[in-house]
Amino acid sequence: MKTIKTLQRMARLIDPVMIQYLKNGADRNFVPIVNYQVKTGGKRVRAALTILCCQACKGRIKDALIPAAMIELIHNYSLIMDDIIDHGDLRRGLPTVRAKYGDPQALLAGMFHREIIGEMALDSLQSKEIHALMVNAIKVTIEGERLDILCEQAGRYDQYMLKNRYENMTPKLYFKIIKKKTTELIKAACLAGAISARATKIHRNAIAKYGEKIGLAFQVIDDFLDIFGEKTGKQKGKDIIEHKMNNAVIVYALSDMSQKQRKRFIKILQTKRLTKDKIREAMDLLESTNTKVKVLQLANDLVVDAKKSLKVLPESSAKNDLQELADFVAARLY
Amino acid sequence: MKTIKTLQRMARLIDPVMIQYLKNGADRNFVPIVNYQVKTGGKRVRAALTILCCQACKGRIKDALIPAAMIELIHNYSLIMDDIIDHGDLRRGLPTVRAKYGDPQALLAGMFHREIIGEMALDSLQSKEIHALMVNAIKVTIEGERLDILCEQAGRYDQYMLKNRYENMTPKLYFKIIKKKTTELIKAACLAGAISARATKIHRNAIAKYGEKIGLAFQVIDDFLDIFGEKTGKQKGKDIIEHKMNNAVIVYALSDMSQKQRKRFIKILQTKRLTKDKIREAMDLLESTNTKVKVLQLANDLVVDAKKSLKVLPESSAKNDLQELADFVAARLY
Repeated sequence: MKTIKTLQRMARLIDPVMIQYLKNGADRNFVPIVNYQVKTGGKRVRAALTILCCQACKGRIKDALIPAAMIELIHNYSLIMDDIIDHGDLRRGLPTVRAKYGDPQALLAGMFHREIIGEMALDSLQSKEIHALMVNAIKVTIEGERLDILCEQAGRYDQYMLKNRYENMTPKLYFKIIKKKTTELIKAACLAGAISARATKIHRNAIAKYGEKIGLAFQVIDDFLDIFGEKTGKQKGKDIIEHKMNNAVIVYALSDMSQKQRKRFIKILQTKRLTKDKIREAMDLLESTNTKVKVLQLANDLVVDAKKSLKVLPESSAKNDLQELADFVAARLY
Repeated sequence: MKTIKTLQRMARLIDPVMIQYLKNGADRNFVPIVNYQVKTGGKRVRAALTILCCQACKGRIKDALIPAAMIELIHNYSLIMDDIIDHGDLRRGLPTVRAKYGDPQALLAGMFHREIIGEMALDSLQSKEIHALMVNAIKVTIEGERLDILCEQAGRYDQYMLKNRYENMTPKLYFKIIKKKTTELIKAACLAGAISARATKIHRNAIAKYGEKIGLAFQVIDDFLDIFGEKTGKQKGKDIIEHKMNNAVIVYALSDMSQKQRKRFIKILQTKRLTKDKIREAMDLLESTNTKVKVLQLANDLVVDAKKSLKVLPESSAKNDLQELADFVAARLY
C-alpha cells in the first residue's frame, strides 16, 4: 500500500516534466499525438527507481527529476515502437498510439520521443554521463527486442524471420535476452539516480546490482503472469496465444519436458490460429512439469538478492522504499 | 566534374567512420542489417557540406569528420524510417532495408542508427553544441515529414489521415514544409562544419544562409525532376502517381490553374490507381501553365542566393568547392 502511494507521488512529480518537454517544438496539431502514450498512464516504476536511488545515495530529488522523466520517456518510446512492430491495438485497456492515429503518425511520434529524450539528457546535471548511459540502455534494449522477436514461433512471415527464428530455447538464452530487453533500462533507471547524486563507486555498484536483480525479477514475474495470471486483466496463456517462446515459464518447462512433449509444445506455438483445445493442451503440458514452483522460487530469489545488494547503502527512508518496491514487484505474484 | 570528385573524396573519408560506429555494440547478426542502408551508397552531399563548411571557416578536416558522419547517418536514419512509412521497396535501384529484412528488423535498425548518432554527438569536439544542433534538426525533419504525408491525396486510409489531409496547397505552405522536411538537415550539415571550426558568428550566419538556400534549391530541383525528369532513373510524373501534392511544380501550377482545372487535377491525384491516360491528363494540366519556367527560375535564384551568402567568407579552395557544389545542385536540371 505504501509503495503504491510512493509511486503515485513520483508520477505526480514526473508527469508534468514529461508533458512539458514533449511540447518542445511539437506543432500544435502534433501535440495530442505526441502526448498520448504518456497520458494513457503507467506505474512510473522506472521514474520512481531513479528518484529513490538518487535519494538513497544522499542526492536531492530535484537533481533526479529530469533524468527520471527521461528514463520514463524511454520506456514510453519503446512501447510506441513495440506496438508498431507487433501491430498492437490495445495497451492498458486503451487504443495504442498506432491504433488511434495510424502507423505513420505513431512512428513519427516515437521518433519525436527520442529527440525529447536527447533534450532531457542535455538538460540533466551530469549531462554527458547521463547521455552515455541513456544511449547505451536504448541500444541494448533494441537488441533485446530484436532477439525477443526472433523467439516468436508464428505470426511473422517475412523471409528474414523465417530463416533466423530461434527454434529452441534454454534458460541461458532466456536470461541473455531479458537482460537486454527489460533489465538494462531498469538498471539504467537506478544508475541515473546514483549518477545524479554523484554517488561513490561502491554505492553505484550496489545500485546497479539492485537494478539488475529487480529488473530480472520484474520480467520473470511478468512472464509468470502472462501464462498463469488471471486477475491482471491479461488473458490466461497470453504468450502461448501470441506464439512467444521467450517466457520464463515456457523456457523452464521446455527443459523439463520429454523430447516428445517438447516437440508437441513447440508445434502448438507454431500454429497460426490456436483453438481453445490447443491452448488447453499447451497449458497442461506446462503444468505437467515442476515449472510453476521453480519460476516462483526464482523470482523470489531475485527479489531477495535485490534487497541484499542495498546493504552497503546508509539507512534512509528512500532505502526502505527501494526495499518495499522490491517486495511490491514480487507481491504481484500472489 | 570536379564536384563529383570532391564528393567521392568526402565519401571515402566518411564511410569508414560511419561503418565503424555502426558496429558499436551491434550483435554480429545485426551488423549486416544495420550497415545495409549506408552500404547502398548515396552522394554524401550532406557530409561534404559539413567538411567543406568547416574548412571554409578555417577549421581542420579532422575536427569535422565525426559531425559529418553523424549528419550523413541522420540522413540514412530518415531514409530507413521513411521507407517504413511509405512501404517503399526500392531505393537507388536496390531493395530497401524493410524490403530486404522485413519491417520489424528495419525499424529496429533505424532506432539503432539514432543511438549511434547520439554516440557521434558525444564524441564530437563541440559535443553539447553539436548534440543540440542535431536534436533540433531531427525534430524539425520529423515535423516536416509529418506535414508532407498529410499532403498526400490517396494511398493512406487510416482515420487520422482521412480527417487531417490537406486538400489544397499554397506556395507559402509548400515552403513551410520543405524548410522542415529537407532544408533543416542541410542547414545543420553546414552549421555542424562551422561549429566544428569554432567559426565567428558572422561566418556562422553566412554558412546557415548558404545551407538554407541550397537546401531549398535542392528540394525544388528534386521536385522538378520528380515530375519532368527522365534521365534520372525516376519515372516521369512519379509524384503524381504517388498522389503527392507537396511538389513545387504542382503547387505553383495549382495557383496558376483555373478553379475547374485545379479541381480536376486534385481529383486525379486522389484516384487510387492511375491509368496512363489520367497521368497524361495531369501532366498536360501542369504543362498548360507557366510553371516549368517559373520553377526553373526559382531554383536558379536560390542557387545564386546561396553562392552570394558565402561572400563574407575568406577566399579558400573550400569556399570555391561550396560554390561549385551549388552549381552542381542546379546542374541536375539540365
